[in-house]
Amino acid sequence: VSATRSHLESEIREQPDAIARVLDENGDRIAKFARARRAGGPGCVMVAARGSSDNAARYAQYLLGERLGLPVALAAPSLESLHRARAVPRGEGDLVIGISQSGRSPDVVGVLDAARDAGTPTVAITNDGDSPLARVADDVIELGVGVERAVAATKTYTASLAVLAVLVAELRADHGDRGEVQRIPSLIGQVVQSSFAAVDGLLECASASHVVAVARGYNLATAMEIALKIRELTATVAEGFSSADLLHGPIAAVTTGTLAVVVAARGKARASVLETADALRDRGAHSVVIGEGPSADLPLPLDVPEWLSPLVAVVPGQILAMRLAELAGRDIDAPAGLTKVTETY
Amino acid sequence: VSATRSHLESEIREQPDAIARVLDENGDRIAKFARARRAGGPGCVMVAARGSSDNAARYAQYLLGERLGLPVALAAPSLESLHRARAVPRGEGDLVIGISQSGRSPDVVGVLDAARDAGTPTVAITNDGDSPLARVADDVIELGVGVERAVAATKTYTASLAVLAVLVAELRADHGDRGEVQRIPSLIGQVVQSSFAAVDGLLECASASHVVAVARGYNLATAMEIALKIRELTATVAEGFSSADLLHGPIAAVTTGTLAVVVAARGKARASVLETADALRDRGAHSVVIGEGPSADLPLPLDVPEWLSPLVAVVPGQILAMRLAELAGRDIDAPAGLTKVTETY
Repeated sequence: VSATRSHLESEIREQPDAIARVLDENGDRIAKFARARRAGGPGCVMVAARGSSDNAARYAQYLLGERLGLPVALAAPSLESLHRARAVPRGEGDLVIGISQSGRSPDVVGVLDAARDAGTPTVAITNDGDSPLARVADDVIELGVGVERAVAATKTYTASLAVLAVLVAELRADHGDRGEVQRIPSLIGQVVQSSFAAVDGLLECASASHVVAVARGYNLATAMEIALKIRELTATVAEGFSSADLLHGPIAAVTTGTLAVVVAARGKARASVLETADALRDRGAHSVVIGEGPSADLPLPLDVPEWLSPLVAVVPGQILAMRLAELAGRDIDAPAGLTKVTETY
Repeated sequence: VSATRSHLESEIREQPDAIARVLDENGDRIAKFARARRAGGPGCVMVAARGSSDNAARYAQYLLGERLGLPVALAAPSLESLHRARAVPRGEGDLVIGISQSGRSPDVVGVLDAARDAGTPTVAITNDGDSPLARVADDVIELGVGVERAVAATKTYTASLAVLAVLVAELRADHGDRGEVQRIPSLIGQVVQSSFAAVDGLLECASASHVVAVARGYNLATAMEIALKIRELTATVAEGFSSADLLHGPIAAVTTGTLAVVVAARGKARASVLETADALRDRGAHSVVIGEGPSADLPLPLDVPEWLSPLVAVVPGQILAMRLAELAGRDIDAPAGLTKVTETY
């Protein structure tokens, strides 16, 4: 390890090991939790989260929706902290999940507190088992990836996604799913290597005054998380979009000064996302494609299942955001104005 | 009516009459629907929508959450159209609402279709009672505000919000709520007048290269809708934020080239939103405040109840967006690249 390596770079590079540890250390606990839940039957799920964890919540929405057919509500920001609305699911089989690496976001704690009062089962996914969120929840799944020193979240983000993926594999009790999840650390290891090798060839895009990251379906979470990383680390206006929404109107604000980060992982969303990439290039945007195969600017490993692709496809975006920030001479580990906990009181 | 007045301006000015008609013509139908629903008990609500209607859905999330304690899931874009996930609520007392002025957004129709198959009651809020959305729904509430000729939605947006407000007043069977709803057309009439009178004094902000619209709680929907109008009509990068989220990180991208539209309506969110306005000004942003009282740049009528304020507070933003587009010499009624129906197949 270089003495001058930033915490951010170390934490990005740690991800294969961190995720392997999540799978090893949490597998049994999640399996046990899932066995108890399976008896509960299908209901509504609410997920409360903020910041990067809110993008993990968006992954949960697609994951629980597509793999299990469950409707997922993302808790509205401030509805508990400002209005004390107690607007949580309270039916048979319902579940409330809080995701917060610090476990100290008052909005997220407030939603779980309301659920506990309503008698709805709660589970906390957090990197701090002593946090207020952990204390209020019926069940706690600790990420256990060690302290995250950089303010911008990376390993806690992918670890939260890994916990969700294991949870769904266990809820489905699907042997194939379980096997696919075990491949994730190796896939992330490959993409860390290939992204660092490729990123320095792309840095003509460093002059962009505006960034859009686009995807659809599962990787909408990835596009939003990559946009958030670029925004946090470089202070550039960076937005994540569903390609379907972007084409409907917002693309009008895309110009030759726009960098378009296109997440075209394998699967049902790919064709529609690549079509959007063409439309972005037609408007003069500089595009960087994260996708399978050698034609991509930041290549993904072959044969990543679509439902797990957000764990892999976000990594090239983390590395691109970091390099752009380095080129701009920013403080990588503690960007101006960025705080680790979203306080909303 | 001026022969050269745009459809957009006519439709903005029509809103007091249009909303009065919504209340007159839909009141009984909504009351009947609500009486049938009240017996069903509390459950989960899913709302499916796209574009401007998605901002109406966000209002529904706060409205049903704060007034009725109901958890509301906003349907994930593409989960039905891309993955055929059928991820809809299917418990006792659950409800699925589709909002689409055209009634032809395939994503929205797909969610209601899935709900019908699951046996979950559905209601469509649409401006076209013959649309695919109306045909698939168990109940239909037609806006009845006449054809919207401008591509950017204005009167169909406020009419959708009015339907939701009446629905909640009826579900609560609250006499006070019903009385407050009846004041909306007059309040919108006042704000149309005061906004047109004030807007031309604000047009130094026309040179902004970036717009953020901020609010919190109920008016998060308003901030997002104002940002969408400015983006659609002027092709400027315009983003809506919860003030809590903005302060946590994204504010780093705010500079002297940023126009900040601050929605500081009366109520619990006001103090926190005004604090954010200070932080935006500290970063050199040019701010336009929509708020109660004479100190606001675009004043709101006095004593608008917080739960109804999104119907009133969006109007100054519509008018600001229109004037900015006129100054930029844009096609007001059919902006380049904008389409009326979000097609996602």
